[in-house]
Amino acid sequence: MAKYSIAILGAGNVGANLARVWIAAGHEVTFGLPNPHGEKARAVVASLGGKARAAVNKEAAASAQIVALCVPWPQAEAAIKSCGSLAGKTLIDCTNPLAPDLSGLTIGVTTSAGEEVATWAAGAAVVKAFNTIGASNFGNAQFGSQRADGFYCGDDAASKAKVRELIEAAGFDPVDVGPLRNARLLEPLAMLWIDLAVNQRQGANHAFKLLRR
Amino acid sequence: MAKYSIAILGAGNVGANLARVWIAAGHEVTFGLPNPHGEKARAVVASLGGKARAAVNKEAAASAQIVALCVPWPQAEAAIKSCGSLAGKTLIDCTNPLAPDLSGLTIGVTTSAGEEVATWAAGAAVVKAFNTIGASNFGNAQFGSQRADGFYCGDDAASKAKVRELIEAAGFDPVDVGPLRNARLLEPLAMLWIDLAVNQRQGANHAFKLLRR
Repeated sequence: MAKYSIAILGAGNVGANLARVWIAAGHEVTFGLPNPHGEKARAVVASLGGKARAAVNKEAAASAQIVALCVPWPQAEAAIKSCGSLAGKTLIDCTNPLAPDLSGLTIGVTTSAGEEVATWAAGAAVVKAFNTIGASNFGNAQFGSQRADGFYCGDDAASKAKVRELIEAAGFDPVDVGPLRNARLLEPLAMLWIDLAVNQRQGANHAFKLLRR
Repeated sequence: MAKYSIAILGAGNVGANLARVWIAAGHEVTFGLPNPHGEKARAVVASLGGKARAAVNKEAAASAQIVALCVPWPQAEAAIKSCGSLAGKTLIDCTNPLAPDLSGLTIGVTTSAGEEVATWAAGAAVVKAFNTIGASNFGNAQFGSQRADGFYCGDDAASKAKVRELIEAAGFDPVDVGPLRNARLLEPLAMLWIDLAVNQRQGANHAFKLLRR
């Protein structure tokens, strides 16, 4: 598998767990953070055995082939815009447009977070992925005899092929669900996962799978 | 299992296949149709070995404990209103608010077909079910060693228990995903199933499952 230089914007639950599995697969990770020398940045880098770097978004993105957007949705637009041009890069949108109280999504039907991100990142190839399951399952995707699926969608075949490898590196069976506009369908799927986990207090040990025969 | 008297509004793909599996499980089915003595009605009743009846919606619903809404979404409001009062009944909403060209849903985020149906059927207990998988899989839910899930949601526990039995009668593992407002999440899940099946020409042999550990 190719080794990628990846900028992860955000070092919360999603970003830190993606870093963990991608570093283990041999990829090079730089966190993009507003304060790359602060306590939070030092703590997450230390938790990864010092095997990641941290930089401001613009610097992290500049040297990366792949940028993963892992900030909360209200911060997504500013995070993207702080990167400068992302033209020619693969941009993985891991966000969900969650209402602050987790009661539902704030957009959908006629657009999606994935499509909004694409309007902010001119020239980047946006792939929606890693949004439909809690990050504690990254690298921990086995459910008995079954493996959880990693659903993704996007419009650029070459970028989707790279993201597919990164989904496999996180332990999931990759499932291509089509064009980026299908982020309108993956984000409600994520909301369903979150509703069961959080609002219905079922915890994080569930995952969606697309059975085929 | 209790035997129910069920009115199925509509005798298309969804209604006819639900009738088939429910009759096989010993339930009594009456189709609600605008023209219960017409050719289409006679054909579907004949295809079921004469083991169903057909009546106008009002008559079919009046004698039923459970009403299943299986008409295309643009006809849903008229079908419900033609039933007269559905107060005290369990109303299974099997619809999806599909755009006519199947490019997406027409409503969502802040409402759903399930919630709209509930506003039309005062006093009925609406349960969303049988909308997330193609009807050719009703009674045919095995995928290798795995069984497809039948997702449902609603606000009335007694009605959900009945619908759970009817989901099992159709061969699915029933999965309760919470309150009726989660129809906002099941309808996009259905759209994802349909998009893969129809728009992406993958056929009907796929199904969603919620893995747990």
